[in-house]
Amino acid sequence: MPSRRELANAIRALSMDAVQKAKSGHPGAPMGMADIAEVLWNDFLKHNPNNPQWADRDRFVLSNGHGSMLLYSLLHLSGYDVSMEDIKQFRQLHSKTPGHPEYGYAPGVETTTGPLGQGLSNAVGMALAEKILASQFNRDGHEIVDHYTYVFLGDGCLMEGISHESCSLAGTWGLGKLVAFYDDNGISIDGDVAGWFTDDTPKRFEAYGWHVVRSVDGHDPEAMRQAIEEARSVTDKPSLICCKTLIGYGAPNLAGSHDCHGAPLGEDEIAATRDKLGWSHPPFEIPEEIYEGWNGAEKGRAAEAAWDEKFAAYKAAYPELAAEFQRRLQNKLPENWEATVTEALQAADSKAEKIATRKASQNAIEAYAPVLPELLGGSADLTGSNLTHWSGSKVIGKTIAEGNYLHYGVREFGMSAIMNGIALHGGFIPYGGTFLMFSEYARNAVRMSALMGVQSIFVYTHDSIGLGEDGPTHQAVEQAATLRYIPRMSVWRPCDAVESLVAWRAAIERKEGPTSMLFSRQGVPPQKRTPKQIEDIRRGGYILRDTDGRPDVIIMATGSEVALAMEAAETLAGKGIKVRVVSMPCTDVFDAQDETYREAVLPSDVRARLAVEAGVTDYWRKYVGLEGKVLGIDTFGESAPAPEVYKHFGLTPENLAKIAEDMIS
Amino acid sequence: MPSRRELANAIRALSMDAVQKAKSGHPGAPMGMADIAEVLWNDFLKHNPNNPQWADRDRFVLSNGHGSMLLYSLLHLSGYDVSMEDIKQFRQLHSKTPGHPEYGYAPGVETTTGPLGQGLSNAVGMALAEKILASQFNRDGHEIVDHYTYVFLGDGCLMEGISHESCSLAGTWGLGKLVAFYDDNGISIDGDVAGWFTDDTPKRFEAYGWHVVRSVDGHDPEAMRQAIEEARSVTDKPSLICCKTLIGYGAPNLAGSHDCHGAPLGEDEIAATRDKLGWSHPPFEIPEEIYEGWNGAEKGRAAEAAWDEKFAAYKAAYPELAAEFQRRLQNKLPENWEATVTEALQAADSKAEKIATRKASQNAIEAYAPVLPELLGGSADLTGSNLTHWSGSKVIGKTIAEGNYLHYGVREFGMSAIMNGIALHGGFIPYGGTFLMFSEYARNAVRMSALMGVQSIFVYTHDSIGLGEDGPTHQAVEQAATLRYIPRMSVWRPCDAVESLVAWRAAIERKEGPTSMLFSRQGVPPQKRTPKQIEDIRRGGYILRDTDGRPDVIIMATGSEVALAMEAAETLAGKGIKVRVVSMPCTDVFDAQDETYREAVLPSDVRARLAVEAGVTDYWRKYVGLEGKVLGIDTFGESAPAPEVYKHFGLTPENLAKIAEDMIS
Repeated sequence: MPSRRELANAIRALSMDAVQKAKSGHPGAPMGMADIAEVLWNDFLKHNPNNPQWADRDRFVLSNGHGSMLLYSLLHLSGYDVSMEDIKQFRQLHSKTPGHPEYGYAPGVETTTGPLGQGLSNAVGMALAEKILASQFNRDGHEIVDHYTYVFLGDGCLMEGISHESCSLAGTWGLGKLVAFYDDNGISIDGDVAGWFTDDTPKRFEAYGWHVVRSVDGHDPEAMRQAIEEARSVTDKPSLICCKTLIGYGAPNLAGSHDCHGAPLGEDEIAATRDKLGWSHPPFEIPEEIYEGWNGAEKGRAAEAAWDEKFAAYKAAYPELAAEFQRRLQNKLPENWEATVTEALQAADSKAEKIATRKASQNAIEAYAPVLPELLGGSADLTGSNLTHWSGSKVIGKTIAEGNYLHYGVREFGMSAIMNGIALHGGFIPYGGTFLMFSEYARNAVRMSALMGVQSIFVYTHDSIGLGEDGPTHQAVEQAATLRYIPRMSVWRPCDAVESLVAWRAAIERKEGPTSMLFSRQGVPPQKRTPKQIEDIRRGGYILRDTDGRPDVIIMATGSEVALAMEAAETLAGKGIKVRVVSMPCTDVFDAQDETYREAVLPSDVRARLAVEAGVTDYWRKYVGLEGKVLGIDTFGESAPAPEVYKHFGLTPENLAKIAEDMIS
Repeated sequence: MPSRRELANAIRALSMDAVQKAKSGHPGAPMGMADIAEVLWNDFLKHNPNNPQWADRDRFVLSNGHGSMLLYSLLHLSGYDVSMEDIKQFRQLHSKTPGHPEYGYAPGVETTTGPLGQGLSNAVGMALAEKILASQFNRDGHEIVDHYTYVFLGDGCLMEGISHESCSLAGTWGLGKLVAFYDDNGISIDGDVAGWFTDDTPKRFEAYGWHVVRSVDGHDPEAMRQAIEEARSVTDKPSLICCKTLIGYGAPNLAGSHDCHGAPLGEDEIAATRDKLGWSHPPFEIPEEIYEGWNGAEKGRAAEAAWDEKFAAYKAAYPELAAEFQRRLQNKLPENWEATVTEALQAADSKAEKIATRKASQNAIEAYAPVLPELLGGSADLTGSNLTHWSGSKVIGKTIAEGNYLHYGVREFGMSAIMNGIALHGGFIPYGGTFLMFSEYARNAVRMSALMGVQSIFVYTHDSIGLGEDGPTHQAVEQAATLRYIPRMSVWRPCDAVESLVAWRAAIERKEGPTSMLFSRQGVPPQKRTPKQIEDIRRGGYILRDTDGRPDVIIMATGSEVALAMEAAETLAGKGIKVRVVSMPCTDVFDAQDETYREAVLPSDVRARLAVEAGVTDYWRKYVGLEGKVLGIDTFGESAPAPEVYKHFGLTPENLAKIAEDMIS
């Protein structure tokens, strides 16, 4: 039997060798946290390398994602489908082992990490999802949802502001099954953190209501085992285990220095490390008994089999709940989904209300949520403004887990990364609201949802100068365009109640990535549509108002500016000008249509094109070209009642009509 | 003599009446914090309403900016040029009194606030600037820099992650002259914060190394006075005074409820509040004795006169230092600036090194910083990667204030907002580095620098897939484009050492707003230029390589892709194709050139235009139109060595040449 230290040294060897081979990477953290990982994975982690998708597995997140070789080593050693060949391909194109752990590349990678603080926040979301899901599905004697979430993190994660947001919430929510391991090695990229990170971290986390295990020797397996047991024994608070470690543990000359943080150790130091660790095996060779010591396959199979039995009993006792649990975990839509949508669309179309689209969004939630118990809503302290709540909203608190609404507080970044964690966990479709402007506070978590391709739904209200008096700090100008530039992000900006329902439908049906929905603060009139037009909304852009024959001019618009376009078109038509109005609620979906459709909406030979949107104009050049015109806003907004701000920026039907007329005269 | 309470009630009356008149706004915070503000402004604040620019004034920041009427009331009452008419114009177009305090609109507004947590972080920057400036200029017996920074903040500011970043740093730096007032009213927009904000805030701030004055009655002037004195007496730590207050104090039915947070009280409640407060004066009428009680003009004049005397003595003793102090405060460039730039440009041009532009950036700092002691650099824990340090860098720490370099730790948002605070304070040009990707963590502070028009310089290295192995979490794709969409932001992406020097020059000479500079991780070859071409770099875009007569095709490029364009042009020229290459390091500066120049660079009649940039393609439609082509990246990046990633995305001279050839054939 190899010793615990020898098992851990396998991680150290793989990490230093893979980084050396790749000529880049971060050996310091894997070598420093190897002993901690060994204890956690071999003594505690409930997982099945044969089935990385097992619903009730413990979640493991490496928030200090630059230490990716730690995770790859763990996956490889414990029996996941990550081969030695994969390890050798570390940081190479199309490998399973990219520089940072990327969700979807290697089995067992629960989330993409690297942008610091976000993995920790994802973990908070996962632990929260577990708690809520358990409250919704577990029954006495049937604990089918019952797992831990473990997260490793470093100084960097703790310096980032998002750690404050999500850890404060984890404390408030009392996430007892969240256990965080702080790699307290005193080193970050610029060197000894004493010059820039002097927080009393245990005290800080106690202030958040966490249980803190202070000052554990991260290289003493028995101490680590006890610390983890202590953490698990506290069930009403998340736990932070502060592990004193030596970065690059084992490297005789570089350990304890930032020189081993983000660069290969070098051949000489690697040789010296082998000597010091007593690890005599060549690079990328692991003795059989070490593999045996690590192998989690059998234990995993047994654990999952036990759960299968438990689930079978549950299914026998609660067949409907069991079926619903499976539906939820598979992220499938319910049977009556189509009917629900159709009914809601018909109702909104007949009602033809003039309402703010944020209100239309609330109506959409009200219509869809009753058949979608997986919808887990919330807002960053703007519930009454974002209108993210509905009549069935039930707020989740420390002692109330069975609910469907979260008060995230004024924490946009934390909210968004927690939403990503919830989506990654499974069983829920998270949606969360803030003002469109404050999408910027969350910007990189929003991007991460797109990078991972998870179904987070971002509800962004007060989407333009139309919010009025709050002024330029709150008035979105460039935010619609910049969200649209995030790859794989779908962005909707509907113009009325019917388009808002379609936007929500698209967001709910889109399983391969996130959706951002931009809603107005101010009221907008309903548009009249044929059934065909209603159907075409789903194509992202469609002809809302047409003319006979070839149009003299095409006006395209989104959201609250569609009404302006329609009014301008009326004026122009009165002058005998042939105007087509294209409503373009979702440019990415429109761009993904086949060429025939796009050509039918925007014929190549019509170059008199005018776009109107209360935001930066350059974005629209992709549709209007160099000859076209764009009416928008390229400066910051102004504080005043909305109609006056619109007038100030020339966003009026009169001005729009005039520009169109000038274009074709 | 009116009582303190009566003086404070003037704020309450003005606030509730102005909000009522505007039919929107936030009366709760001004009414809750009125007593605190009265004590601070009348007993402690060193300021001169006649000269809001007085260099040694105390700085006052309202971080909970939605309570803007508090600040406007204070400015009006104490004698700033904010008239009752201005107060009546609250939240109206072009008024001095917009919905949130906007820097540059009313005298005495030290920073734009509203986006929560940022005002607090600006205040940290101001207090830091004071400390460093004092260490650089004060001499024994000549304390010409000696002021406090006071900041009001609410629960929202404390929930935001940025408060963690900047307050942790304030503790590390030991900013003893920073005094923060926490409006602990237990209410945020969604209601009683107990459901989502359960931090032990005093404990949290003690963990940051702050001095905390706990649980002061924010409606007891004597208690407040003592608390402020205590805070000022602790000189080696920043202080947080936790003030228990009642939101909307004085409103008999709405005080203590979130209903008075963000909406007018209504006529009836206002009448009832007048009764309860014993404030019988009609709206917008303030009795003369109340004005007298508030008037800060005389005291301010005396205070500034005393300082003037002090400065005169200083000037007599240290004439050169005094002149330099004045130059620094006026943000004027030194005499030898032009010569320094010219010399550096000539040297770089002759040296013609192949280096990464991040290295070229460091060379630029090395060349310019010796004549610009106002340059205050730093990095968010990526000093060795961003190359933001230079041979003269001296790190600032808790006990070392005389320096010019800051280790911000892994805190991009905090860094950026602190930089804005430093710039607002005056005396410095702050620059700070991180990877371009992590500009997203700081996004809204970056925007705020542009909104305020302050000279923060953002150094963003590792600006594309060219960073290689770290993969898609770190590879910027849409970030250059999205930064360019921020109004008033200037964005440079230079292609070699010479362009990097010009970019830095532009950033340093641009006093009316911020500059973002994007630099490569990887080496780029030097380009050959005539003196005229070197001069034209300042125009943002210029012809780097031309052809005789009308070009068959124009290729435009930025940064590391300029070399690709030049190589492709060579290939194309070999085939007899007439190619012009336009280097476009700064689109905003190019767009601001006169039409003649722009037309000379991009003639309207040449529509065979091809843009290449390792980022989202749609941005370039503004130059290439619908007929042109863009070679770029519209997906996420990949982890692999940089040359392979470039090849993977088709960003090669061969592919570029092929696209150009196809376009014109």
